[in-house]
Amino acid sequence: MHAIVDQIQPVDLHAGEQARRYLDTLTKPPGSLGALEDLASQLSAITGELKPSVTPPAVIVFAADHGVAAEGVSAFPQEVTEQMVTNFAQGGAAINVFARQIDARIEVVDVGVASRLSLPGVVDAKVRAGTANMVREDAMSRADALAAMDAGITAVERAAKAGAKCIIVGEMGIANTTASSAMLAVLSGESVASVVGAGTGLNQQQQAHKVAVIERAISARQAKPQDPLDVLAKLGGLEIAAMTGAYLAAAAQRLPAIVDGFIATVAALTACRLCPAVRGYLIFGHRSQEPGHDSALMVLAAKPLLDMGMRLGEGSGAALTHPLLQAATAMMKEMATFAKAGVSGKAAP
Amino acid sequence: MHAIVDQIQPVDLHAGEQARRYLDTLTKPPGSLGALEDLASQLSAITGELKPSVTPPAVIVFAADHGVAAEGVSAFPQEVTEQMVTNFAQGGAAINVFARQIDARIEVVDVGVASRLSLPGVVDAKVRAGTANMVREDAMSRADALAAMDAGITAVERAAKAGAKCIIVGEMGIANTTASSAMLAVLSGESVASVVGAGTGLNQQQQAHKVAVIERAISARQAKPQDPLDVLAKLGGLEIAAMTGAYLAAAAQRLPAIVDGFIATVAALTACRLCPAVRGYLIFGHRSQEPGHDSALMVLAAKPLLDMGMRLGEGSGAALTHPLLQAATAMMKEMATFAKAGVSGKAAP
Repeated sequence: MHAIVDQIQPVDLHAGEQARRYLDTLTKPPGSLGALEDLASQLSAITGELKPSVTPPAVIVFAADHGVAAEGVSAFPQEVTEQMVTNFAQGGAAINVFARQIDARIEVVDVGVASRLSLPGVVDAKVRAGTANMVREDAMSRADALAAMDAGITAVERAAKAGAKCIIVGEMGIANTTASSAMLAVLSGESVASVVGAGTGLNQQQQAHKVAVIERAISARQAKPQDPLDVLAKLGGLEIAAMTGAYLAAAAQRLPAIVDGFIATVAALTACRLCPAVRGYLIFGHRSQEPGHDSALMVLAAKPLLDMGMRLGEGSGAALTHPLLQAATAMMKEMATFAKAGVSGKAAP
Repeated sequence: MHAIVDQIQPVDLHAGEQARRYLDTLTKPPGSLGALEDLASQLSAITGELKPSVTPPAVIVFAADHGVAAEGVSAFPQEVTEQMVTNFAQGGAAINVFARQIDARIEVVDVGVASRLSLPGVVDAKVRAGTANMVREDAMSRADALAAMDAGITAVERAAKAGAKCIIVGEMGIANTTASSAMLAVLSGESVASVVGAGTGLNQQQQAHKVAVIERAISARQAKPQDPLDVLAKLGGLEIAAMTGAYLAAAAQRLPAIVDGFIATVAALTACRLCPAVRGYLIFGHRSQEPGHDSALMVLAAKPLLDMGMRLGEGSGAALTHPLLQAATAMMKEMATFAKAGVSGKAAP
């Protein structure tokens, strides 16, 4: 992990500024493409190129189980993690559909599913068969968290080697909003009640139970907010650790990473706490309906591109955003300048 | 125009409901794809099909000039309309770039550019060489407005015949936010000051001037709010009339139409006033930074998909939204059901 952090350089703000100046020469009123122009500038800062490419993108879905599922915090039974991994392998889940839409290479990585899997197309990088129940003991050891982070780093390096120009990371893990909420409460200092939502579909009574479980876990584990790895190991999950590693690796490779919803953002926050320079490489895809997401976004001063009331995970919201990145790069590459098109600029006031 | 209105049927709400029920059988928590699910249901209601297609889309850009430009209401000189039409014809404008991204057929239609154009690839449907200055006389006659609407209807029928499954309409016309603001103030009953914004880039003093010009025009023209065609003829524009016709034609053809920003939404509102059943065929692409857009959206009870601070027009925001419609239809066509994938549904509470 230290090795990867040492490779991360801050984004190239000078290249971002050059992109802004170039945008103002294109045949449109200055600034009239709003956030798409910000995106183009950020992509230049990330890559150091005036006209970068974001295709092909790579989608990597990390799957793992959570011991805390035993506390009855999820609307779905734990075996759904394995069943959904099978669905990913067969190409039938939402993320498969959206990955195909954007011509993305998709890789599913088992970093800690409870059951033994043997599925063609699923990368076996299992660190352990799910985390322990964080109410009773640390979710995992520091060494396990580092190993899961390494699985994420390796997956991004594999994607980069295969030519990926943009990284989209997703997750599957029943009860992982519980782990993420616990991590976020500790990392942000916010109350558990304010960051806990319906997950994949809980009623009010079930939500109150989820809050109580997380509060018990936080109080029992005493993770140190200033030590992100401690928070990740004691309260996190193996797929969350892998995603954290993936964001570090994307930054090290100078690749834009589109961050998905709540769980992804907690992993992104963890990566930024480990190495603040990661922040510049992150593009926030969408605003999740999970209430904790707003808190996590605020801590990162992030404004997501889409706000469509989604809360599925898997990387689905991030994948849906990729066409906007493509449009931002196409604008830089293909639009005519005022000079070239013979269009009069703004009249003098 | 009456002929086309008679062809418009309300959207098929039963098909929309069937789509909702099917969505709940797909391998995702019910409702977890938020507005994308609403979109899928609306597309089923529009087409009457459970698994409709929205590709290929057609982009049609209508261009015309405005006599009111003589009042100094725009940051750009009038000749920019013609220059940008040339840019469209050469493929260098933002809408060209975004149309290519979504594999759209693009057609540029001159319904009233002031100068004589002879550009390969631009459809000549000029009704007159720009509107009159609405401060001094009616922008155009009722017959001219109807002729421009017909040009819009014909363009959509041409696109439908060529196989288009989704209609994206855009515009170019220096000073057309002035005409649209005047129309919206009359149609909505809102004050001019509340619907006027910076257009393509005005300072506060210029905005105050724009408000005064519009107030003078409204007071001089006395258009009847309950007669949308009167409002269109006296205060509107030839490209706005063409867009109004285009939305009517899309509804008549049962094709989804993605509405762009402020000017497009005023045209869409006009179409809905002429035939309320049109509303069900409209998908609102993005929220423009032009302040009047919020008023227009509110009147139509519309919530746009994107909110990226854009204000370019040309159909650019609508084109950027098309991948979300594609994703919604792919979700319906390609996602596995719980039963087929062998995934456990939500646990009993």
